Amino acid sequence: MDRVTELQKRASETAGVIGLAGGLPADELLPRADMAAALAEVAAHGSEALQYGWPEGVAQLRTWIAGRLAARGADVDAERVIVTAGAQQALALIGSALGDRAIAVGAATYPAAIDAFRAGGARVVVDGGDVVYAVTGVANPQGVDLVDRAALLADPRALIVDEAYAELRFDGRLARPLLADAPARTWHVGTISKTVSPGLRVGWLVPPAADHERVLELKHAADLQTASVSQAGFAKLLARVDYDAVVARARGHYADRAAQLVAALRQHVEGVRFAEPQGGFSIWVETDTPGDDIALLEDAIAEGVVFDPGSTFRPEPDAQVALRLSYSNANPADFVDGARRLARALARWRARTSRAA
Amino acid sequence: MDRVTELQKRASETAGVIGLAGGLPADELLPRADMAAALAEVAAHGSEALQYGWPEGVAQLRTWIAGRLAARGADVDAERVIVTAGAQQALALIGSALGDRAIAVGAATYPAAIDAFRAGGARVVVDGGDVVYAVTGVANPQGVDLVDRAALLADPRALIVDEAYAELRFDGRLARPLLADAPARTWHVGTISKTVSPGLRVGWLVPPAADHERVLELKHAADLQTASVSQAGFAKLLARVDYDAVVARARGHYADRAAQLVAALRQHVEGVRFAEPQGGFSIWVETDTPGDDIALLEDAIAEGVVFDPGSTFRPEPDAQVALRLSYSNANPADFVDGARRLARALARWRARTSRAA
Repeated sequence: MDRVTELQKRASETAGVIGLAGGLPADELLPRADMAAALAEVAAHGSEALQYGWPEGVAQLRTWIAGRLAARGADVDAERVIVTAGAQQALALIGSALGDRAIAVGAATYPAAIDAFRAGGARVVVDGGDVVYAVTGVANPQGVDLVDRAALLADPRALIVDEAYAELRFDGRLARPLLADAPARTWHVGTISKTVSPGLRVGWLVPPAADHERVLELKHAADLQTASVSQAGFAKLLARVDYDAVVARARGHYADRAAQLVAALRQHVEGVRFAEPQGGFSIWVETDTPGDDIALLEDAIAEGVVFDPGSTFRPEPDAQVALRLSYSNANPADFVDGARRLARALARWRARTSRAA
Repeated sequence: MDRVTELQKRASETAGVIGLAGGLPADELLPRADMAAALAEVAAHGSEALQYGWPEGVAQLRTWIAGRLAARGADVDAERVIVTAGAQQALALIGSALGDRAIAVGAATYPAAIDAFRAGGARVVVDGGDVVYAVTGVANPQGVDLVDRAALLADPRALIVDEAYAELRFDGRLARPLLADAPARTWHVGTISKTVSPGLRVGWLVPPAADHERVLELKHAADLQTASVSQAGFAKLLARVDYDAVVARARGHYADRAAQLVAALRQHVEGVRFAEPQGGFSIWVETDTPGDDIALLEDAIAEGVVFDPGSTFRPEPDAQVALRLSYSNANPADFVDGARRLARALARWRARTSRAA
């Protein structure tokens, strides 16, 4: 276990530590009752939820996914959609399919995307490369929209488009999918992990048509198929709830949390800068201090607050320390205390860092 | 889609075709009611089933897996167990971890193991190599125990031990795990896909201790974690049912099916040979006829029966045609008709093959 995971795991098991780490949806938004009813129904029916299925996934879900893309302007046949074990598996399959290509991810991005690409044999770079990884709508960890759609469309490189947080822009805007305008070179990735439940592990991948067969073979080799119980359960949930209403409610919930954490940070933490989140789960906090952000994490845990160190998001080291603070599954009643503890940790760490320099 | 999958998929959607393809457990053995109750209970509780978890899996399951291995003589700490998306993902992770090593799988083996090893960059060979892949207890597709335990223990090569069917030996014998006697070089793989439900996608991997960290990183990169809903649901199922009784019932069920298909083949199909299954789901039928087994599959589907062509199980082509017939999820009332149709298909195909020669 790496040092950061070790520290965060221990912190998560320590009473009183305020958790601002991890990209978890709010526990209170998980659709417990509806999911319980949906799962019970499909399991009682048997084969659909408990037996083997085909590697590409359940037809009903693939049709739903294609339908939502079509409504946004990307006319995709359901046959082209592959249901994956979350967006993560989609990224891992892309990594495998792309082999040793160089993928540009920017200066800070979703850490497990870097791992997925590298595990498949790809090289991960900040700029340049043969392929661009774009987290559209809301970037992670930055919490704001960093995508220049026109520039990406004018650029001939292949595109990995990760819409993990796209539906959780607080203003509810959902851009036309890049897949609509660059279909031959776009690898489109989506998930229900942030909007409904990550524990189901349901996501999807629409590879370029020319790569479909190869990717489906890789999916079969990886795990035969995405869990039938998750696919059948989620398909049944869609008959019970209005997905758009679920997402709208989540947007409001996270917007409120974001505003509360922003206010607490502004009032209690000095010497940092951050953009107000436009959506998603977290705030990307930057400092002008070079140093070791794992030492800062240790100080923060000692003060009783835990976060994600900026270095974990960076494919290449950066001089200045940054950190990601997630409001998504934290209690807003803890935000003022969390900000104060972070301020104390920063002061302690800066004192140590300046002594060392 | 490859030609075999295409033919089988079409056959599965054609009314009246008798299905003897695929390693599916019996629909009627899927624990519908208990699983419905277990899933409803864990989903209603929320976080355990619907939220993110750690990449290594749920502690309760890892303890159960380690406990069952310990009871058979392999003293494994639960910390070393990684819960995977079925045995398939365990094999895929091994393929990735082993890189470009050469894995010996024998003349006929589980096809998706070949794919998983190759996807990870390994070479697959019949004999020799640096690593041996052994399906213990009951081999797939052969349906009999092919493992020489003493020889494997005397051999210094690394071992991939796949226990997918081990609990389904009709005599109920379960050998001491090779992991017990070759712990430093054994990659131990297990699953509930054949005994309880493949649709949950719950399996496990115990890598050699020295490889644990690397494999856990690969698991995280592959899909973050195995579905929480499956892990929590199965853990809850274990509180409702006696797992050993479930397995014992399945053994009896499949032994009865096997005997009925053996009798039908003996009575109605000439010019083939097969060993009576000692366990598992299927019979491996060999012929002395060289030729194209996909052409035979086409003839069989035209006659109204579908099977798995032997070539899909072979890492290297073999002169004589073979086929796998699965009794596990077929209706015994169809076995006599299935055997007669297969005999007609074989006769038609042999006539064509001899004309062509």
